[in-house]
Amino acid sequence: MTSWGGLFFFSTNFLISSQPLTEVLNLSYMNLSTQPYKGARDFYPQDMRVRNYIFGVWRDVCKSYGYEEYDGPFLESFELYAAKSGEELVNEQLYSFEDRGGRKVAIRPEMTPTLARMVAGQFKTLPQPIRWFSIPNLWRYEKPQRGRLREHFQLNVDIFGVDGIEADFEIVSIAIDIMKKFGADESMFEIRVGNRRLLNDVFGQFGISAEQGVRVLKALDKRSKVSSEDFAQLLKDDAKISDGQIGQVEEFIKNPQPVIESLLKTSKGAQEVDGLLKFAKENRKDKFIKYDPTITRGLDYYTGNVFEQYDLNPKNTRSMYGGGRYDDLVEIFGGQKLSGVGFGMGDVTFLNFLEDWNLLPKFEAEVEYFVTIWPSENAAEAGRFQKIALEVSEKLRAMGKNVEVWLEKDTKIEKQLKFADRKGVQNVILIGEEELKNNTIAVKNMSSGKQSNRPLEEFLAGLK
Amino acid sequence: MTSWGGLFFFSTNFLISSQPLTEVLNLSYMNLSTQPYKGARDFYPQDMRVRNYIFGVWRDVCKSYGYEEYDGPFLESFELYAAKSGEELVNEQLYSFEDRGGRKVAIRPEMTPTLARMVAGQFKTLPQPIRWFSIPNLWRYEKPQRGRLREHFQLNVDIFGVDGIEADFEIVSIAIDIMKKFGADESMFEIRVGNRRLLNDVFGQFGISAEQGVRVLKALDKRSKVSSEDFAQLLKDDAKISDGQIGQVEEFIKNPQPVIESLLKTSKGAQEVDGLLKFAKENRKDKFIKYDPTITRGLDYYTGNVFEQYDLNPKNTRSMYGGGRYDDLVEIFGGQKLSGVGFGMGDVTFLNFLEDWNLLPKFEAEVEYFVTIWPSENAAEAGRFQKIALEVSEKLRAMGKNVEVWLEKDTKIEKQLKFADRKGVQNVILIGEEELKNNTIAVKNMSSGKQSNRPLEEFLAGLK
Repeated sequence: MTSWGGLFFFSTNFLISSQPLTEVLNLSYMNLSTQPYKGARDFYPQDMRVRNYIFGVWRDVCKSYGYEEYDGPFLESFELYAAKSGEELVNEQLYSFEDRGGRKVAIRPEMTPTLARMVAGQFKTLPQPIRWFSIPNLWRYEKPQRGRLREHFQLNVDIFGVDGIEADFEIVSIAIDIMKKFGADESMFEIRVGNRRLLNDVFGQFGISAEQGVRVLKALDKRSKVSSEDFAQLLKDDAKISDGQIGQVEEFIKNPQPVIESLLKTSKGAQEVDGLLKFAKENRKDKFIKYDPTITRGLDYYTGNVFEQYDLNPKNTRSMYGGGRYDDLVEIFGGQKLSGVGFGMGDVTFLNFLEDWNLLPKFEAEVEYFVTIWPSENAAEAGRFQKIALEVSEKLRAMGKNVEVWLEKDTKIEKQLKFADRKGVQNVILIGEEELKNNTIAVKNMSSGKQSNRPLEEFLAGLK
Repeated sequence: MTSWGGLFFFSTNFLISSQPLTEVLNLSYMNLSTQPYKGARDFYPQDMRVRNYIFGVWRDVCKSYGYEEYDGPFLESFELYAAKSGEELVNEQLYSFEDRGGRKVAIRPEMTPTLARMVAGQFKTLPQPIRWFSIPNLWRYEKPQRGRLREHFQLNVDIFGVDGIEADFEIVSIAIDIMKKFGADESMFEIRVGNRRLLNDVFGQFGISAEQGVRVLKALDKRSKVSSEDFAQLLKDDAKISDGQIGQVEEFIKNPQPVIESLLKTSKGAQEVDGLLKFAKENRKDKFIKYDPTITRGLDYYTGNVFEQYDLNPKNTRSMYGGGRYDDLVEIFGGQKLSGVGFGMGDVTFLNFLEDWNLLPKFEAEVEYFVTIWPSENAAEAGRFQKIALEVSEKLRAMGKNVEVWLEKDTKIEKQLKFADRKGVQNVILIGEEELKNNTIAVKNMSSGKQSNRPLEEFLAGLK
């Protein structure tokens, strides 16, 4: 219940007048749906456990690399996202509105603008490199579908202040370590690296103009979704490049290495891609990473290597999420240049991946002991049974155990055991007349059905 | 970086044309403030640690009582909060707007409506009692001040399906255990219990009418903020009760016990208050709890005992948060009756409390090892130093350690040590020429300045 005063501020009359609350209320309230808002999720305890498990692994891996957790507010000023006015996505997907003071605000649709704002705010005092991560809840107005809701949580991992490809490598390594920590291996996922600077130079080498290059990029982006005939047609009709150039582009896609090597001396993009792949090989991560010219990423703040992680599920090969290098973003914000590399891993897609590959563990009950209250029709006796049950529960908690206790007196023991069973609690404690007299407790294991009686103090000492 | 495609979707031209990103962008972006939205907080890593520490203790205590974590969406339908149309708080403080599909939505200002919706949704399949907790971020349009921002996180702890005062006691016990876990004792805080049904019956006994009673309630709510003269004046002018009744009310406030006892046979409210206090005494929690007739709580969904926790800081005695019993709320929602008791503990007020009483621990660096890269002007050698540093880091991570590694080659060792020092890392690993040759590592303790050289494998084995 809230500490803020409260919205359900009905007239205080109803309590004084003993008028039932239901009558005081507007009746339309009775017809409210129990469903959440479209495209958003309720996390019932069974869902929350999965969420906490995933977030826990994410956190552990990030911390193992020295990344520190941060968070920003759920609402930001609209301007933070409206960098380029008339922006299509801002206009179609952003949840934005005017607050009661006339400020235009938006619900964060991604974390990077907040991150850039915060880094710019403490730029001068933070030791570099800055290694940060966050798991914000983000919103976009989308048509809900598998893997895409209106809200999701997204692990954001970013490093600032390292210009070399070592930073690209570390960011990719964190992504790989996360996958491994969940039990995924190289047969299940793959990191595909792209680089637009490299593509630009490759196009230059093929004699493709800047204007045509933009069209080729767009065709490449659709490469995995269309047939190779349609792809060639796109290059011909849309990009208007020659048959010879189409052949060069297709050959480059099939076997990019010779072209990359021929550009190593002149192309920064070629150096970046080649550098990352070689560094990954030297450090035994090459089996997870490959160059893929069709990876271009939609986000135009990327300035160097970009990457997307692909689910290799043969039934549904697909991009799970992506990231890359963005060396100009903080500069845009605060006027100072600071290179950044990072990725954003969404929980909806991620959960689909874990479910599809059967990588989710079975979750045990978090409650370790269920303490029953021995029933009695004698009120004084029932009170004593209740008191000892609460006392034992408190002692178990003091030992660091998670303990659920039945609360009401004189409930049939079968009903209490059934509750413990439905909750999946392994150990049930029973303190009846004999136990109360002898200062012992009975512990029943719900799987084996076995029951053991021991002095209470001995039992507690055994938990240390 | 986002996996959703991206809002910063500038023309792809800029990369092809090598036009700098800064020029492509609208220049107004350059002038954006690095401050968060008014009344909202940025959680830089140092703030996030405090937040995670507090949430961690909250979670541990809730789990120790068998409570399961849940969460609902940040956005809910407006109707969920608009139970009573024309509601003052809904109209003044709620963040609400129309989504792009014309649905009226609101940012959750409190958790209880979501909780009631979710419980109503799975009412039939959940074993009772239902014990749930959550730590949602909540928003209200307020004038920001100490202890009150536009957003806060709030621990919500609720139990459903127990009609007896045992549930009230458990909820209060959890609140007390949380305080104790942070090191607070009975000299620092107190739980004050109120009950409007009891007040109603007390007023009846004094011959105060229902209409007058509402006014007396309002005066009681102001009791702690006005002088006793002004309080008497309020009762006289506003509630229009007689001098004799004013005397009775004041005597009741001073010494409520005799009146409560005289009503035990007839007043459910008296039974509830007396029951809780006696139960608390039997179970050794009475030093934290007392009855206070001025506690009435603003939220009108409460039906039984309510309580507020007071900070006993002599410089600033104040209510920190509250809760109570609300037996009709789920019924209103889903048509089925289900009793509930719970509280909501806000993080802003809570943090103020911990700071005022000096109860926050000092936080150690989460990074356990900082691994340097030995500098060398010889590129091949520098590469070897870098490789071994990354390799040792990976091995330490595999042992469950949090390890930050310098990434760039040929950085002066002093600069690397200074970075480790600023980050507060205790152990710094150095692998120079000798170490590389002998397969050893040097570990420097940053507090003592002592350095020890050991074979790498021996060092790793020692970590097990």
